[in-house]
Amino acid sequence: MRFTHETLPQRVVFAPGDAPYAVANEVAALNGSKVMLLASEREVALADPIADRIPVVLLHDEVVMHVPADVAARARDTAMATGADVLVCVGGGSTTGLAKAVALASGLPIVAVPTTYAGSEATNVWGLTEGGTKTTGVDAAVLPRSIVYDAHLLSTLPGESAVASGLNAMAHCVDSMWGPRADPIDRAFAGEGIRGLATGLRRVAADPADVGGIEQMLYGAYLAAVAFASAGSGMHHKICHVLGGMFDLPHAETHSVVLPHVLAFNAPNAPEGERRIAAAFDADTAVEGLAALRDELNAPGALRDHGMPEAGIADALAPIKKAIPADNPTPVTDENLTTLLEAAWSGLDDRRSR
Amino acid sequence: MRFTHETLPQRVVFAPGDAPYAVANEVAALNGSKVMLLASEREVALADPIADRIPVVLLHDEVVMHVPADVAARARDTAMATGADVLVCVGGGSTTGLAKAVALASGLPIVAVPTTYAGSEATNVWGLTEGGTKTTGVDAAVLPRSIVYDAHLLSTLPGESAVASGLNAMAHCVDSMWGPRADPIDRAFAGEGIRGLATGLRRVAADPADVGGIEQMLYGAYLAAVAFASAGSGMHHKICHVLGGMFDLPHAETHSVVLPHVLAFNAPNAPEGERRIAAAFDADTAVEGLAALRDELNAPGALRDHGMPEAGIADALAPIKKAIPADNPTPVTDENLTTLLEAAWSGLDDRRSR
Repeated sequence: MRFTHETLPQRVVFAPGDAPYAVANEVAALNGSKVMLLASEREVALADPIADRIPVVLLHDEVVMHVPADVAARARDTAMATGADVLVCVGGGSTTGLAKAVALASGLPIVAVPTTYAGSEATNVWGLTEGGTKTTGVDAAVLPRSIVYDAHLLSTLPGESAVASGLNAMAHCVDSMWGPRADPIDRAFAGEGIRGLATGLRRVAADPADVGGIEQMLYGAYLAAVAFASAGSGMHHKICHVLGGMFDLPHAETHSVVLPHVLAFNAPNAPEGERRIAAAFDADTAVEGLAALRDELNAPGALRDHGMPEAGIADALAPIKKAIPADNPTPVTDENLTTLLEAAWSGLDDRRSR
Repeated sequence: MRFTHETLPQRVVFAPGDAPYAVANEVAALNGSKVMLLASEREVALADPIADRIPVVLLHDEVVMHVPADVAARARDTAMATGADVLVCVGGGSTTGLAKAVALASGLPIVAVPTTYAGSEATNVWGLTEGGTKTTGVDAAVLPRSIVYDAHLLSTLPGESAVASGLNAMAHCVDSMWGPRADPIDRAFAGEGIRGLATGLRRVAADPADVGGIEQMLYGAYLAAVAFASAGSGMHHKICHVLGGMFDLPHAETHSVVLPHVLAFNAPNAPEGERRIAAAFDADTAVEGLAALRDELNAPGALRDHGMPEAGIADALAPIKKAIPADNPTPVTDENLTTLLEAAWSGLDDRRSR
């Protein structure tokens, strides 16, 4: 047992139905008197009742995916011009990402109110896109001081989007078992996260407005993000990043298809991860547990159905091999990686892909 | 799911056999050039190899239990006089407590190197004793910036002390399931802590120098402290505090005797805690799991063997009832509390005390 774990300071508030009250509390605790509220046009309706309870000097609704640098610069300039002293963001990963970009430039504290399961609110990672290239970095200034999770805000999220976003969080948990900096604390968080996500995903798939299920998913997604930010990207995220970039594949579907294959690939050589994942699913094995959940959710099964050409398998081999951390539990060869990619491409049952 | 969880910032380093190197790293990260090293006379031998690797300007070895205010004042004054810029404490709860008292007055950062399972190194709680009264408080300045856990430093701790200290940490975990501010994150940490402590206690009871077992205990004790500091004192710690104060009972033995009775008392009405504790022990029920461990460790079984008079049961009733949090899972009455205290006093098997 040899590791360094860094715990980041943050207040996490679970307040079902009470976001306006809880956000007002957090803003007051930060002595905020001039709030810049960030919410995309789609999210403004969710943000309205919150805005009523806090001293908003500026509503910023220009939110663009992947945080383009010019969008971030405009947001920062208006923040400065209005003398805002606290940032409140209501939204998914793009909105949180924009608030982080403003915080990075200004040092202003963030109160984050998530409306998806992306998890960005629980990490100190920022990202900016310029000229088609995304730059990411780590900075203490971008970690939101407080998160307010209000399950009611997600009750209008369509079931399909909720499941896709939840499976993305599930991938954070699984990959945290063997990320380059994974330690037992990360794995404990990830196991607890899987438990919450598995319970919540089943309930939300059956009824997207099930607040109890959404709560479990938010809890799981929060733990997933804490674990993943600490452990770092493992084999799964490296594969998805390369494939997504090369073939312009849809993000959520790619993660959903690839995950069971990576789990089957690594589990035999990651006994602690295998034990924790199996226990979290209340299943005999990790692979069986994930497969049973995916069956119930009718999760997407083949990359070929999402735009990846068969010849892409050979093309992706070298960049993927290069990206996977050297200490991946199962050593990666051209042969076993090809087998994995072929299975993910064709939609071979992951339980038989080892 | 309605709670506020506050995560405190800290670096946690597990470095078996490498404390000198790891402490030097942490001191360097704090830009420390003048270290005040705190270690009791008993611990100086353990601290020596660490002292060789860091710029020590002052070795302070006046360490007294419960941190008397005059001892703390002297430590603070010498810290100021020497211009120390980092505090390194090597020792148990009293040594860490003294470093915290100096930090409270000076704002100096602490690097803590624990040599017991007390857990003070992972909390922002300080304590000072003056005129027989102990004052405690919470302050961000006393939370050590870094902890260095080196299992080798505990390999000379006598088995009996290790077991007593480990069971004390176990009590932190169990009481964290229903402390006044307990939330699911605390309970997840506490469950993971029980797992580590149960594994480690069995190994260390068999061989006090088993470094792998000590590591598990340190890991469990760290998680126990994080959970307990967040959840707050529950029924168990309130009972032990009142009994210890009224009858001058030995600390570790009191905790060890009382714990299974409180668990049996609360488990039927604390389903989440019951499930998590049972799972952590790999047992059918929480009570059976703890009982099996205590049998193996030959843990002390009766308060009458440690100096408590039988008449004390009636005397302690009112102050204990007053101290127990109002939302304790099982409502406390004179009758059920008397039954519990009688069982703890006489050493009745806790599996039959419900």
